Amino acid sequence: MSPTILAILASVLALGWAIVLIIGVLGKEDGDDKMVEIARSIQEGAMAYLNRQYKTLAVFTLIIFLLLGFVLPENGFEIAFSFLVGAIFSALAGYIGMGVAVRANVRTAQAAKTSLNGALQVAFRGGAVTGLAVVSLALLGVAGFYYLFTQSFGFPIDEAPGLLIGFGFGASLISLFARVGGGIYTKAADVGADLVGKIEKGIPEDDPRNPAVIADNVGDNVGDCAGMGADLFETYAVTLIAAMILAASTLVTSHGAVVVEYPLALGALGVVSTIVGIYFVRLGEGKTNIMAALYRGTIATGIVSAIGMYFITKHMLNDINIFWAGIVGLVMTLLINIVTEYYTSTDYSPVKRIAKASETGAGTNLISGLAVGLFSTFPMVIIIVTAIFASYWLGDHSTLNSGVYGIAIAAVAMLSTTGMVIAMDSYGPITDNAGGIAEMAKLPAHVRKNTDALDAVGNTTKAVTKGYAVASAALAALVLFQAYGEELLKNSNEHFVFDIADYRVLIGLFLGGMLPFLFSAYLMEAVGRAAFSVVEEVRRQFRDIKGIMEGTARPEYNKCVDIVTKAALKEMIVPGIIAVAAPILVGFILGPLALGGMLGGVIITGLLMAINMSNAGGAWDNGKKYIEDGNHGGKGSIAHKAAIVGDTVGDPYKDTAGPALNALIKVINTIALIIAPMIAGVSLLG
Amino acid sequence: MSPTILAILASVLALGWAIVLIIGVLGKEDGDDKMVEIARSIQEGAMAYLNRQYKTLAVFTLIIFLLLGFVLPENGFEIAFSFLVGAIFSALAGYIGMGVAVRANVRTAQAAKTSLNGALQVAFRGGAVTGLAVVSLALLGVAGFYYLFTQSFGFPIDEAPGLLIGFGFGASLISLFARVGGGIYTKAADVGADLVGKIEKGIPEDDPRNPAVIADNVGDNVGDCAGMGADLFETYAVTLIAAMILAASTLVTSHGAVVVEYPLALGALGVVSTIVGIYFVRLGEGKTNIMAALYRGTIATGIVSAIGMYFITKHMLNDINIFWAGIVGLVMTLLINIVTEYYTSTDYSPVKRIAKASETGAGTNLISGLAVGLFSTFPMVIIIVTAIFASYWLGDHSTLNSGVYGIAIAAVAMLSTTGMVIAMDSYGPITDNAGGIAEMAKLPAHVRKNTDALDAVGNTTKAVTKGYAVASAALAALVLFQAYGEELLKNSNEHFVFDIADYRVLIGLFLGGMLPFLFSAYLMEAVGRAAFSVVEEVRRQFRDIKGIMEGTARPEYNKCVDIVTKAALKEMIVPGIIAVAAPILVGFILGPLALGGMLGGVIITGLLMAINMSNAGGAWDNGKKYIEDGNHGGKGSIAHKAAIVGDTVGDPYKDTAGPALNALIKVINTIALIIAPMIAGVSLLG
Repeated sequence: MSPTILAILASVLALGWAIVLIIGVLGKEDGDDKMVEIARSIQEGAMAYLNRQYKTLAVFTLIIFLLLGFVLPENGFEIAFSFLVGAIFSALAGYIGMGVAVRANVRTAQAAKTSLNGALQVAFRGGAVTGLAVVSLALLGVAGFYYLFTQSFGFPIDEAPGLLIGFGFGASLISLFARVGGGIYTKAADVGADLVGKIEKGIPEDDPRNPAVIADNVGDNVGDCAGMGADLFETYAVTLIAAMILAASTLVTSHGAVVVEYPLALGALGVVSTIVGIYFVRLGEGKTNIMAALYRGTIATGIVSAIGMYFITKHMLNDINIFWAGIVGLVMTLLINIVTEYYTSTDYSPVKRIAKASETGAGTNLISGLAVGLFSTFPMVIIIVTAIFASYWLGDHSTLNSGVYGIAIAAVAMLSTTGMVIAMDSYGPITDNAGGIAEMAKLPAHVRKNTDALDAVGNTTKAVTKGYAVASAALAALVLFQAYGEELLKNSNEHFVFDIADYRVLIGLFLGGMLPFLFSAYLMEAVGRAAFSVVEEVRRQFRDIKGIMEGTARPEYNKCVDIVTKAALKEMIVPGIIAVAAPILVGFILGPLALGGMLGGVIITGLLMAINMSNAGGAWDNGKKYIEDGNHGGKGSIAHKAAIVGDTVGDPYKDTAGPALNALIKVINTIALIIAPMIAGVSLLG
Repeated sequence: MSPTILAILASVLALGWAIVLIIGVLGKEDGDDKMVEIARSIQEGAMAYLNRQYKTLAVFTLIIFLLLGFVLPENGFEIAFSFLVGAIFSALAGYIGMGVAVRANVRTAQAAKTSLNGALQVAFRGGAVTGLAVVSLALLGVAGFYYLFTQSFGFPIDEAPGLLIGFGFGASLISLFARVGGGIYTKAADVGADLVGKIEKGIPEDDPRNPAVIADNVGDNVGDCAGMGADLFETYAVTLIAAMILAASTLVTSHGAVVVEYPLALGALGVVSTIVGIYFVRLGEGKTNIMAALYRGTIATGIVSAIGMYFITKHMLNDINIFWAGIVGLVMTLLINIVTEYYTSTDYSPVKRIAKASETGAGTNLISGLAVGLFSTFPMVIIIVTAIFASYWLGDHSTLNSGVYGIAIAAVAMLSTTGMVIAMDSYGPITDNAGGIAEMAKLPAHVRKNTDALDAVGNTTKAVTKGYAVASAALAALVLFQAYGEELLKNSNEHFVFDIADYRVLIGLFLGGMLPFLFSAYLMEAVGRAAFSVVEEVRRQFRDIKGIMEGTARPEYNKCVDIVTKAALKEMIVPGIIAVAAPILVGFILGPLALGGMLGGVIITGLLMAINMSNAGGAWDNGKKYIEDGNHGGKGSIAHKAAIVGDTVGDPYKDTAGPALNALIKVINTIALIIAPMIAGVSLLG
């Protein structure tokens, strides 16, 4: 059976498995009326947001679909069509994942009444649905289109992968807006709810008297579940496509179709090992080490992938060095997890230093947190450059003689664990919501204790996911960058050299390097603006609706949901347009060399800023948690007040600006690849 | 008369003029006994720090002197010797400038008793001494060594400039440590004094009861005067040298010595126009617009330079396009000033937004400030890439046919205003100290009002200086980067292409891009650690010395000075070693291509981070000032408390980490240039 068919079958299998998990999760008890009512509010808010987001994006998608179809000089229809499907599949994965997450939350709260492991199972399997949906739809899209283009449309093997970029671009576009919109939504609701509720009114987190409490819970889902799902859908699709394009343009003539289809086979393998891994996540009777349970699943997936990869590589390429390049990708994933955990977990010195610095106030808490984020780029960059070096060397010393193919395979191997990583991340908002529901429905204390235990590891798993996402985004972007060079060569017969000493490349580097700064700045301010509108509404409700504080009147939750929905959708437009317009303007005005420089610049600073922001945010968050656990004076102390400030700053850092940079990096790279045939020789600077 | 002789004479003239200014400043009244006593404490503390700093650096300097002399394959003696003189001249400029600053402060306070303009004159001329000392010694060093190498040692014109890199490296090394040590000193003392004095004890800024008050005033001098002076000494020397090296290696054969000596002529011109500009800084009777007075001086200098440049260029090169490239540099300086002022002055919306965001607490103040800093990179990068593009185009379309020479001349033209920029910056600590002395000596309120008025523009001039410094550092670094490529070519006969698509260049880019993050992280934490030791000492004194709070006992100021001196010197070692070791390790282990990538990476992210940090810090500082002026509730309000937190975070951002990045960028580039002959072909990755 061909690897392409195998990949298609594997993705169908995973989709089926997702349905099995959905049935399992939905079959669980959903608790009493109060719980169901709260859960319904969250469901409605989340779905309303997603519907409106996709409606807004449908306009963009349609315009770009038409542009691609009519403006592209070659194969416009194929690229436009695969673009459309990429966008739709990404949206679909978001719908499925979030639809389950907002139903798993209340069932997790219910399960937490009786057992920690029971609750873990519901929450994790709810998250695993998103994981499987994302991976299977991405793989189905890539393998399906590849099959379609080669088998039905009769494109030659060295040309077909180039058309898949449309699918990747569709995924990138949705990912960009979903990350940006979701990120603004979740933090605007969170900050807005906290500023009035916690600080002005002194009521606890998730208190049903807070009019923004439902919006806050909705935010967890649209940000961490739908946004993150779209992000990794795109990473998965684009990484696979980049590897195939690179193979098609440099290796097919000498080594045949196998080099293009090998990544698909690895994709199929990853799906199977993810399904296996899911069943390794469980807690023994009386055990409470949740993080270990989650890791066990990921490690099981990694081991199954490694073993499978050995046989697949031997069978298809008969080259041990390419196998080792894949292992580099898996080891890199592991090391990134370890480093991220070191910088963001309450067990290690960075978070403890932040907590200690909080004793002398918010100023020192912030300086300390900023330093932790900046510091964390050091080990991450060392890991990434070592992985680049090792996988390049292995690829170069393989029978394929291609260092860049080695890098591409390392990146593809990282995808084996994507499903598990998504599951671990999606699990976060489910347990977070479960805790919120338990609080709002006034469930007994031991329920909240169980959901809190589940939620406690959420900060770390979320940080780990972000580290994973940006590292794999960087590797994928590097492969896209190579493909961009090849594409220029093919279309102009000119070998473009992106020499830093060339002033055009340099100008591009500066511009590209600046983009993540500009983009983050915009997002940080957008959160501030959107949060401010929430604050005003919450204050208004406390003022106008008598009896909220006494618990005799019900706040108008849906008003807050509505306000933050509108604000997030409005604020996502400008950064989205900046990201899409930047490479087009630079490409057509300053030319292919400047655009190449821009790609390099955006990869470098995008990676650094994303790591910096995610880890600083995670560390601030857990610094607060560490103090709340009773250290440095505990809740209510000066240190705690300082740590709350740090956490507030960290929120848009880690959940809005930081993660949106992955999408920025890749949308710019995919657009460059698409416009490459048109810009060679027509630009101002030549 | 040859341009070299002219430059030497001009620098001697400037040194003489500095002496005239010194005599003028020292001739002013120094106030009553109380004032003189306070001033003496500051003088002693500042000089003690500078002495110990230079003693520590003497060891480093000696080791590197010997290494250069014995390890360099060619002309080791000449490079080592010019290195030593570069280090000594830089130190000398620091001594002269700071020696005058710590005497001008008390005289400014005294002059402020009678007139605002009188006080401005003393403070500004005190600052102008540093400006003239820095510019004249730098120009003397470069022109002098060039004369020595070509005339006495008989080196050919195309080789002599290459030896000047030793002088530049000496300047870079001192600049690196002075910026780092001074930056840590000033902010550790400031933060330490504020945390206990203002926050714990509730006593005002500059209160003589605060045991760290003298250390705080010393810090202004060692950071903003000595540190900044060393920074711009290095920028001046290295920019000039880079332009000459570039001309020597690419244009001398075709166009003769004139292309090498033209930058020296521009240097001589800049000295003269700086002297002219100094006399344009004055306030009319009853006028209070101090910023306008300072700008008038800078603009006068710019205009004189522009006119002179026209005639010099016509005479020496007879090429109008090179003249315009110089104008690009001057216009860029102006635009950078405008943009920096926009982002950091209380008159415009960014600072006002931060002040407004302070109403909802420290969290929103911080988010807003971080966003302002990140945003400000956008216009700055647009200005810089436009300048690169324009000056490249002009150089390319000149009779010299060299785009890079165009960039080099734009950078050299920027140096015309260096003296004025330093004067404006050095003026800051003088007026800041004057205010402190007025407070401590309990002078009448109108004195403090005058010094406050002078000090108010200090935040903006300091931010403008930093913007200027990093932009000119970036241009200079680009020219150094070109020179690095030429040097590799000369030594290996191989044309190295720094293609971003090459994995070695890419690894270097990642590593170089990460360095400013690592470096800033270290400095931020170092300030925290050093501040903490000050906090402990201040708390101890309040506890052990009875009567401090009542004003009946005198705190042990010198203990605090001593502690922060030791802490700053200790903390400056590690970042200094990182900066020096990084290019050497990468060059010898990963090779010339990776080192080239590293240079590119450090220039890009170093520039972005420096702009980001300086402007965010300046904006936070002035956000606080804006509130203190009575907006958003004024002093003591919630907004004010929030703004104090923002200012505390901004302190190490703008005065420690941000400015040290200029030095980092250039020290790495000069080291690369020095080791270039040795690394071609010997490294691990080839």
